[in-house]
Amino acid sequence: MAVYLDNNATTALDEKVLEAMLPYMGQITGNPSSVHRFGRLQKDAIEQARELVARLAGARAEQVIFTSGGTESNNLLLNGFNRKNKAARIAVSAIEHMSLLEPAQHLLPAADIIPVDENGLVKLAGLEQVMTEQTSLLSVMIANNETGVVQNLAPLINFAAERDCYFHTDASQAAGKIALDFVDSGVHAMTISAHKLYGPVGVDALILDKRLPLSKIQFGGSQEKNLRAGTENVPAIVGFGRAAELALTSLQTTASHVRSLRDALEKGLKEFSTISIFAEPAERLPNTVQFAIEGFDGETMLMQLDRKAIAVSSGSACTSGKTEPSHVLKAMKLADALANSAIRVSFGKNNTMSDVEKLLAALHDIIEINQHSSVMMAATV
Amino acid sequence: MAVYLDNNATTALDEKVLEAMLPYMGQITGNPSSVHRFGRLQKDAIEQARELVARLAGARAEQVIFTSGGTESNNLLLNGFNRKNKAARIAVSAIEHMSLLEPAQHLLPAADIIPVDENGLVKLAGLEQVMTEQTSLLSVMIANNETGVVQNLAPLINFAAERDCYFHTDASQAAGKIALDFVDSGVHAMTISAHKLYGPVGVDALILDKRLPLSKIQFGGSQEKNLRAGTENVPAIVGFGRAAELALTSLQTTASHVRSLRDALEKGLKEFSTISIFAEPAERLPNTVQFAIEGFDGETMLMQLDRKAIAVSSGSACTSGKTEPSHVLKAMKLADALANSAIRVSFGKNNTMSDVEKLLAALHDIIEINQHSSVMMAATV
Repeated sequence: MAVYLDNNATTALDEKVLEAMLPYMGQITGNPSSVHRFGRLQKDAIEQARELVARLAGARAEQVIFTSGGTESNNLLLNGFNRKNKAARIAVSAIEHMSLLEPAQHLLPAADIIPVDENGLVKLAGLEQVMTEQTSLLSVMIANNETGVVQNLAPLINFAAERDCYFHTDASQAAGKIALDFVDSGVHAMTISAHKLYGPVGVDALILDKRLPLSKIQFGGSQEKNLRAGTENVPAIVGFGRAAELALTSLQTTASHVRSLRDALEKGLKEFSTISIFAEPAERLPNTVQFAIEGFDGETMLMQLDRKAIAVSSGSACTSGKTEPSHVLKAMKLADALANSAIRVSFGKNNTMSDVEKLLAALHDIIEINQHSSVMMAATV
Repeated sequence: MAVYLDNNATTALDEKVLEAMLPYMGQITGNPSSVHRFGRLQKDAIEQARELVARLAGARAEQVIFTSGGTESNNLLLNGFNRKNKAARIAVSAIEHMSLLEPAQHLLPAADIIPVDENGLVKLAGLEQVMTEQTSLLSVMIANNETGVVQNLAPLINFAAERDCYFHTDASQAAGKIALDFVDSGVHAMTISAHKLYGPVGVDALILDKRLPLSKIQFGGSQEKNLRAGTENVPAIVGFGRAAELALTSLQTTASHVRSLRDALEKGLKEFSTISIFAEPAERLPNTVQFAIEGFDGETMLMQLDRKAIAVSSGSACTSGKTEPSHVLKAMKLADALANSAIRVSFGKNNTMSDVEKLLAALHDIIEINQHSSVMMAATV
C-alpha cells in the first residue's frame, strides 16, 4: 500500500465528513436562492456550516464568507480591497502562497514584499522596511506550507494596529493544526481552506471583520453578504462545517499524533550524516518537516520515493513543476544547492509510525544505491 | 412527498454521477499539481472528464476550462477579455443571466445591451443597433432560464463573424436539453454548468476557442492552461464528466419525457380562463414553461404552492428575493401586472405525470379559495 506523506498539499476526506455531505448529494436538491422549502433547506444547511467554521476560527458566524477555494479567497481579499481603496498600498510577506503573491504582482498597482529572516520569520524590522504612509493592508500567513514555520504574529498585528493598517493572515496551513482566534487576535481577515483539514476541495472561507472595506470581484448575484456571487456549493460547505467541527474537537490529539511521527522522522534523519532540517530553530507546525540531504536533488528524490510508493513533496505542490528553488527558500536566502535538495514531509492523522519507518528505509536504500552507483561509475570511467 | 418543479434553478445529483465521484471522496487523495502517483491519478481523472464534457459541447478536450461555476465562467470571460483588450467594447443581450449582466455593468468600461423582441428573441436589427467599430465580443445565450426561449443563433454568429467580432454563448440552460455543437456553430466561447444537468454544484466549464484572447482573473497557479489558478475540484470535475456523458446519451429520451410533461401542463393551464403563457410563439426548451394567472401575484402563488409542497420559481432563482419584475420580462416589455404574476415551471427527468396533476390540482384549489375569499371579503365590507 502506498504511503501518503503530502498532507500539506491536500488531505483525504474524512468519512464522517462524507457522511455529512451525502444527504446533499442525492435526490433532495434545491438552489439556496430559491424561496421554496427545497431552497430553504439548503440555506439552513449553509448557515449551520457557517457556525461550525466560525467556531474553528474563533470568529462569529456572520464573519464567514464561503468561496470556492483558498486561491479565490486570497484573490478576493487583495483585489476586492484594491477595488474599494484605489490609493492604498498593500504589503505581503515574501513567503506567502502564490495565491497572494501573484495577485499582488498582477492585479495591484501598489504592492510591497515584506522580507523574512533566515528561518522564514517576519520581523518588525522587515515590516518597518516596507511600510509607507499609504500602506493600509498587511498580509502575513500564520504557518508556511513548505517549512511549517509558525509566525509570531502578535507584535506584527500590534504594529499594524498602531498605524491604522488592516491585517490579513492566511491560515490555510494552520487551521486544524494549531488553535485559531480570529476575534481576539485582532486580525481583520483570515483564509481557511477545507481540503487541508480532511474536508472537501472546492470550498474555503474568507473570515472577515466588516470594518475591512471589501468589494466583491465576482458579479452576478448577492450571495454571501453580497461579497461572492454564484450558486453556493452546499455539499462542500456542509462538509467544511463538519470537518471544522471534527478538527476543533481533535486539535490536541491530532497535533500530538503527527508531532510524534515528525519527531521520530527527524531523529531518524539525523542519523544520515549530511542532513539539514530547514528552519529547525523556529516554531514549526507539528506535522511538517522540510529537509535536504546533501548532494541529492529534491525532485529526483521525490520521483525515486514515488517509485517506492511513498508520496512526498519537494516544494509547494502548486509550483512543483518548476525546477528552480521555491520562492520560500529563496526568501530565506538558502544556498541554491541546499534549496534544490528540499524534500517536504507533511504528516496527517491517517499516518502511522510504520509510514515513518518505510520512509527512512527508502531514503536509506536510495542513498546507498546512489553511493554504490557513484563508486561503480567512478570505477568504469 | 414534495414535488420539485424548479430544475432550471438546480437539478438533483444523478446517482450514477455520485457513484463516479465517490472514489475521489475517500481515503485516496492527492493534489493534481503534485508530481507523485497520488497527484497523477487526480490529474488523469480531470483529463478523462475534460474529454467527456467536450463531447457534450461538441468541442475538443483542450478547449475545456474548468471553473467553480457558471458565474465564475461568465465573469472570467468578460473580465478576462477586457484585461486583454482594453479598448474593446462588449455587447451582451438584455436577457442574459445576471452573471453576465452584472460584470458588464461593474467591471467593464464599455458594455452595450442588445435589446430583444416581445418574445425575448435577439434579432439582427437589435445587434445592428448596438454594434460599433469597437465592439469585439458579443454574448447571447442559447436558451433563457426563465422563459425557456431558444435563440436562433446562426444569423447572429454570422453577423459577428463578418465583423471580426468574437461570440460567446451561455449554454447553462441549454446543455443536456438540446444538442450543442461548439466547433461547428462558429462560437468562440460557451458556458456549461454541471448542476443544471444532474451533475454536482461547484463546477462549470468555459469552452474556449484559443483564438479568443483571454487573461486569467484569478492568480496563484498555472492550472487550467494558466487560465484559472486554484486547486482543481477533482470529485466535482469527475462528476461533471459523468453527468455530461449521461446527458449526451439520454438527450432525446429526456427531452421527449419533459416535453410530454410540459405539454400536458400547458394543456391543463389553458383550461384556466385567465392564463398567459410567455413567449409561446417562440421555440422554447422542452422542459420550461413560464406563465401568469391574471390577478395572482407570482411570489404569493409560489408561497401558496410551497405550502402545498410544490416547488416552482417566480423568476430567476438568483434574484427571487426581489419583488420587481425580472429583467428578462422587462426586456420583453411585458406589462408589469403580467410580469409580476410570473410562475416558472421547469421539469426534470425525475418528474412524472403525477407531478403535473398535483400542480394543476393545487393551482385550481388556490384560485378557487382565492375567488371564494374575495367574494367573502366583498360580502363583509
